[in-house]
Amino acid sequence: MSNNVIYAQAGGVTSVINVSAYALFQMIKKYPTIFGKTYAALNGIAGVLEENLVDIDLIADNQLAKLKYLPGAAFDACRFDLDSLEHNPAQYIRVLEVFKAYDIGYFFYNGGNGSMVTAKKVADYCCQQGHKVICVGVAKTIDNDLAISHCSPGFGSAAKYIATSLAQASLDIKSMHKTSTKFLVMETMGRDTGWLALSGGLVKHFLPDIPLMVLPAESPFKQASFLTKVKQLIAEAGYCVCVASEGIKDEQGEYLSFKSIEYTTEKNYYQLGGAGNALANLISDKLKVKTHAIIPDYLQRSATHLVSKTDWDIAYQAGEASVLASMNNGHGTLPIIEKIKDSPFQWQFKNVDLITVASMDKTVPDEFINIQDYAITQQAVDYLLPLIQGQVKPPYKNGILDLTPLNIKTVEKTLTA
Amino acid sequence: MSNNVIYAQAGGVTSVINVSAYALFQMIKKYPTIFGKTYAALNGIAGVLEENLVDIDLIADNQLAKLKYLPGAAFDACRFDLDSLEHNPAQYIRVLEVFKAYDIGYFFYNGGNGSMVTAKKVADYCCQQGHKVICVGVAKTIDNDLAISHCSPGFGSAAKYIATSLAQASLDIKSMHKTSTKFLVMETMGRDTGWLALSGGLVKHFLPDIPLMVLPAESPFKQASFLTKVKQLIAEAGYCVCVASEGIKDEQGEYLSFKSIEYTTEKNYYQLGGAGNALANLISDKLKVKTHAIIPDYLQRSATHLVSKTDWDIAYQAGEASVLASMNNGHGTLPIIEKIKDSPFQWQFKNVDLITVASMDKTVPDEFINIQDYAITQQAVDYLLPLIQGQVKPPYKNGILDLTPLNIKTVEKTLTA
Repeated sequence: MSNNVIYAQAGGVTSVINVSAYALFQMIKKYPTIFGKTYAALNGIAGVLEENLVDIDLIADNQLAKLKYLPGAAFDACRFDLDSLEHNPAQYIRVLEVFKAYDIGYFFYNGGNGSMVTAKKVADYCCQQGHKVICVGVAKTIDNDLAISHCSPGFGSAAKYIATSLAQASLDIKSMHKTSTKFLVMETMGRDTGWLALSGGLVKHFLPDIPLMVLPAESPFKQASFLTKVKQLIAEAGYCVCVASEGIKDEQGEYLSFKSIEYTTEKNYYQLGGAGNALANLISDKLKVKTHAIIPDYLQRSATHLVSKTDWDIAYQAGEASVLASMNNGHGTLPIIEKIKDSPFQWQFKNVDLITVASMDKTVPDEFINIQDYAITQQAVDYLLPLIQGQVKPPYKNGILDLTPLNIKTVEKTLTA
Repeated sequence: MSNNVIYAQAGGVTSVINVSAYALFQMIKKYPTIFGKTYAALNGIAGVLEENLVDIDLIADNQLAKLKYLPGAAFDACRFDLDSLEHNPAQYIRVLEVFKAYDIGYFFYNGGNGSMVTAKKVADYCCQQGHKVICVGVAKTIDNDLAISHCSPGFGSAAKYIATSLAQASLDIKSMHKTSTKFLVMETMGRDTGWLALSGGLVKHFLPDIPLMVLPAESPFKQASFLTKVKQLIAEAGYCVCVASEGIKDEQGEYLSFKSIEYTTEKNYYQLGGAGNALANLISDKLKVKTHAIIPDYLQRSATHLVSKTDWDIAYQAGEASVLASMNNGHGTLPIIEKIKDSPFQWQFKNVDLITVASMDKTVPDEFINIQDYAITQQAVDYLLPLIQGQVKPPYKNGILDLTPLNIKTVEKTLTA
């Protein structure tokens, strides 16, 4: 059986996705009798199609170690999936050609649900054609919407970023509201799920006096109730802090705000990112007070200086667990996180069926949010707190984090394009 | 002569304003024969008018030490100045009454230019009425527009935050642009000056491959040239990263975007904060590509987890220098920063006339920016780099920074309101 490896990244990045890559490479090196050479495909599955492959074994250890603290996707992450086999068999034939040429027996895909499923289908196709490829997923998403799993690698760090940043900004408005801003809103990522808005709710746990409102994507936005609550908090405390998912919708199911149709190779869909400004403008207009909107956008998924050590460990182990799964009949599986103990928080990895987990999603449960009070519950606090614990200390260089990318070169192409 | 002290904070906060307060309190304690009791007025000069005073001597040392890492203004910061003496003598009479009641001989004002001048005028009035008060300013502003001074306490940390965050976000878009976002813009604070946008230009120093454009408030926005450059960078590199001051104006001197008229006790003026979205929308509309806008807003002035040690030291010494000035005929002065050596960067404090410095401002000099290329020059890099050096390590508690505010109580009021 072929025993070379391809690893690839796809979909929205997390601040610890490269940690999983690092751990995966390290783990593979521990089993030289099982695995052959390791390649990374640049830009996900697109890098396989285009034969844009990096020979990981040629990268020096001190270079590879940069992956532990590097934002973005070190090997580029596509938002691109193959078509279905029926519609575009040429893509599958091409992947098979590349896998054969490079003697690939293992395919690790560090992507979103959809793209991991596609990766698995590609591997299935290769097997049907007589070239056995074991495909294993590596979990990651800041959105925390991965079903069955206790949490997603990447979420804890984004949650820590949101909670810390919102707490700092809350002390800012608190100290200035008497003669200045009365309403501050932070917009978090989360198209359909409110996990990151929920993590902003931790501010109330750390700073109980902050008049805070949490609007996760799951709760329909009710303008009258919202205005009443903001007005009440400004009357009582002098100001109001709000954290809202980009994906909040009104009672008719319409996004509160959208910016424009995306012009990308992705399917057209509404690009979100206007909910924070929409809320700030609403309050300016209706309550005639000064407002501010914070849109961290990419910062919440690339802030490698403010990573949760717990999340970093989970991302590291996600990489390791995928390698272990690949050696244990793990084709078509995804190692997910299972909580085994509450205090101190302990977890283990468990291999589940990729197709099953990809067909489900995980929204914020009702018991985590008190809709009436726009507050998160103690259960939510108990769930979130363990995930943001601990700090990672990335190296600094000349005043900012050492963010110098890896020095990587693609192998010389041997196939026709 | 009266020898009690009042310290107060006013105007937009910095992530190190409380460091100056801490240093000032510590310095005062070193001269018990000169200074009597120390009070902090809550909410700037408003706290004096309303007799909202905190007895600093009653706060335990371990509580006071929190000031070293606390965001916001620990003693609240007003955006409020007294009227002129002619228009509202009652305010001045009231301040004198409070100063007399509390035996105040020293007034330290940690505020913007305008409010420090007002503080000085109040002290002058008290002197004319036979109650001698020495008023000294304590410099602070993230905008770096303080004239004569080499830099402003607070700027280096905001610059470090912007440079670090933009570098991280740049690696994010770099790794995903092929099938996703092509244009990313970060909006920095700076109504009239572009120092913080300039600091975003450091990304090019750390990551030379990033296709970066810098738009400081000083350079008129020229839409045609801007679009041409963005198009060129997207054609060459596949994407474009942009950092722009909130206060950029077109060639007619109109702000590129404004949100709404402020409804505050402040004078009405355009509240900025829409330039980033305006640029992102422009690019979406004209170039039909996916865009993202990052609006750090308050985060750039409250991120106490990402402070420059150099700036922290400068802020600390600004507090100390003000106390020293007050003992050396410093009434009406402001200690500013004078560079004495380039490499390694060394500085000293120098007392200048408050009224003089307040009547000037400091914009980004022409030689710091290459308008044609939307780039910062080596001179700008040489100026900026020393200011962002070094890290401060604030304590964490249960996953986020320990942001518990000081436990402060105001003294019992003795005067009629």
